[in-house]
Amino acid sequence: MKAIPTQARAKQKRAALIAAASECFVSYGYHNTTAKTVASKAGVATGTFYQYFENKEDMLRVIAKQRMEELYQQVPSATEFLELSSNVEKATVKPGATERIFHQVLELIYAFHEQAPELHQILEQRKELDPELAEILGQGEKMLYDRVLMFVNRFNIENADAVAFNLFAMAEGLVHRQVFSRPMQSKALTLQLGAAMLASYFDNL
Amino acid sequence: MKAIPTQARAKQKRAALIAAASECFVSYGYHNTTAKTVASKAGVATGTFYQYFENKEDMLRVIAKQRMEELYQQVPSATEFLELSSNVEKATVKPGATERIFHQVLELIYAFHEQAPELHQILEQRKELDPELAEILGQGEKMLYDRVLMFVNRFNIENADAVAFNLFAMAEGLVHRQVFSRPMQSKALTLQLGAAMLASYFDNL
Repeated sequence: MKAIPTQARAKQKRAALIAAASECFVSYGYHNTTAKTVASKAGVATGTFYQYFENKEDMLRVIAKQRMEELYQQVPSATEFLELSSNVEKATVKPGATERIFHQVLELIYAFHEQAPELHQILEQRKELDPELAEILGQGEKMLYDRVLMFVNRFNIENADAVAFNLFAMAEGLVHRQVFSRPMQSKALTLQLGAAMLASYFDNL
Repeated sequence: MKAIPTQARAKQKRAALIAAASECFVSYGYHNTTAKTVASKAGVATGTFYQYFENKEDMLRVIAKQRMEELYQQVPSATEFLELSSNVEKATVKPGATERIFHQVLELIYAFHEQAPELHQILEQRKELDPELAEILGQGEKMLYDRVLMFVNRFNIENADAVAFNLFAMAEGLVHRQVFSRPMQSKALTLQLGAAMLASYFDNL
């Protein structure tokens, strides 16, 4: 990846190219998008694209990195989650607190995917072919997984890491199916019941 | 799709072509596989391929259909699942029964994916581009979902369909992550804890 420019005007151009690329990937698909189409959409010359990005692969990696950072920024906004994740005793957990936390986190993951479902599918597909992209997405997931582990750890259970892995995978499965497959019921019901189903295990530890 | 031949020799040729196609898709990827490479792998002339299949797309649909049927055949082998899914009263459920059922079903879904993970990923990717393939996979999922709903229905709860949807999605998420992303722990531990986590909600209804 090329360095991020520091000048305001250059920063703006780079941001416009990133936005244009996201739109092109979603509208025309990854394969039909070229540096030229992206530059044209951003209203700059094709050469400008190459000032800021190595190529199309690099562009997708930059987008992936940015999205992962955005997601991570949002996670702490679930304040109850953080509060509970600190080293308080399990006995102090209020009834329904775990379910509320899970609901918040599911809402967050849902919103993240819903924002650009097609882009998510492109990232999923491309990561099979681009180890560097897989690495970026893997790092983003690792950050989120560590947060989940932090939560699970406070229950002082055996195999906390495996429980965290499962919790992560189940939440992902739930959101993916609700966003990507024409779901059979409302988002609200899926997330509400999903939170209750996931919380049950922790409430009965 | 072309009709399945009835003559033994023709059936055998068709089966050999299907097996060869699965191998080619996995080894060379979908795009690099042609009717010619498949026919050559199966040891028949390219023209023979077209006797049994319309084209490459058709071949993948046939494979998808076959795999979905195989999976469905396996589901009833979880006998306790079927036993419990009949109209017995909730009160008669033995302790740990739900967890054991979920464990069996997770093992089954795991084995199904593990058998040919690359093929699964090709199917996932191609279904975005081929509505007919998406329809076949959707029908297969619907059969499985109906089985899950049958199980959930016996708990006489509100929103049984949404609970079944969530259960399905969470089990899928769990298995997908264990099979497709380099997992951090053993299959055994993931499935065992996964069954316990999923069963908790039902055991506490």
